[in-house]
Amino acid sequence: MEKSVVPKATLGRLPLYLRYLRSLPEDTKYVSATSVAKALDLGEVLVRKDLGAISGQGRPKVGYTAEGLIASLEHFLGFDNRTPAVLVGAGRLGRALLEYDEFEDYGVRIVAAFDCDERRIGPGPGVEIYPVERLESFCKENGVRIGIITVGASSAQQVCDQMVKSGIGAIWNFAPCALRVPKGVLLKRETLALSLAHLNHQLCNPSL
Amino acid sequence: MEKSVVPKATLGRLPLYLRYLRSLPEDTKYVSATSVAKALDLGEVLVRKDLGAISGQGRPKVGYTAEGLIASLEHFLGFDNRTPAVLVGAGRLGRALLEYDEFEDYGVRIVAAFDCDERRIGPGPGVEIYPVERLESFCKENGVRIGIITVGASSAQQVCDQMVKSGIGAIWNFAPCALRVPKGVLLKRETLALSLAHLNHQLCNPSL
Repeated sequence: MEKSVVPKATLGRLPLYLRYLRSLPEDTKYVSATSVAKALDLGEVLVRKDLGAISGQGRPKVGYTAEGLIASLEHFLGFDNRTPAVLVGAGRLGRALLEYDEFEDYGVRIVAAFDCDERRIGPGPGVEIYPVERLESFCKENGVRIGIITVGASSAQQVCDQMVKSGIGAIWNFAPCALRVPKGVLLKRETLALSLAHLNHQLCNPSL
Repeated sequence: MEKSVVPKATLGRLPLYLRYLRSLPEDTKYVSATSVAKALDLGEVLVRKDLGAISGQGRPKVGYTAEGLIASLEHFLGFDNRTPAVLVGAGRLGRALLEYDEFEDYGVRIVAAFDCDERRIGPGPGVEIYPVERLESFCKENGVRIGIITVGASSAQQVCDQMVKSGIGAIWNFAPCALRVPKGVLLKRETLALSLAHLNHQLCNPSL
């Protein structure tokens, strides 16, 4: 089945399905959307739709082969070809992200980190931390396509420009500022505070 | 104007508006949605709708008084009464969040952090880090309403239960696992990897 773009919410559930399927006994032949839904406490219609989107319809009354569904999920999530990413800014947040082991479950592998502070250069959590001067050559040599910005707001645009120059096609920005990128480069700003604000907003307006 | 629940995207723009309005010369009397939209490179219809939702309609041809609009935004974002929050798990991610100074812009104040590792107890970034045994009494004494979980998956449910017992009404979970809370307690799971996955998905499917 061809890959298609799925909604973010669906994408978020795929690693759950994969984790569940991998946890099944090795001799499990078939799984149904019903059993997956039940095990994960999700709606059956929802699971059926999600699995249909990435693996087509299961066989009536039987469902999917466990092996086939795992392969579809892995392929869809890009496990057979994880996108190489770099991170610039190895402060607390940067290092916390380097330690975060969920990214590989979503088809992305952080292959190196960079910092302008020489005290931070050296082995980091999981990857090597290089001087930021090496960013461009590293990205070009390693075909890096995703850049994660965890520097402060004052140097974020400069880092962003360097990433674009290095051939990076998608930027995930944690710096608390808006960035400008040329057309064709994807940019996603992560505003952590926003989730908290939304939770607070719901908490303070319980009637709605 | 009464507070109402606004979409998350609107909520995310409010601090931008506030920052812009505060940056204006002190003798600025009036601002219009048009000028705000232009300054922030946003659509005029969008800005008009956002401002209308939190501060009613501006006066025709004049717009809003700068002072009044700032007051509306601050009130809406809860600046006059920030919700007290605590964080449990003062590892790298926890400390990165404590350092993150955007939360106050969204009406939440982290007032203390807790950890079970005694080497982490003491002054932390911005707040004191206490032994986790003190969580319940601290929350009750200080009317804490939001709990942030930045411990590992293995102890997250236990921390969550303690938070609920401490009277916390909303939980923001960074641990990579699903949590169960009683009815009436808000729960938001933060899956950082998901944003990255979505970006990667778009990058790998440029035609869609």
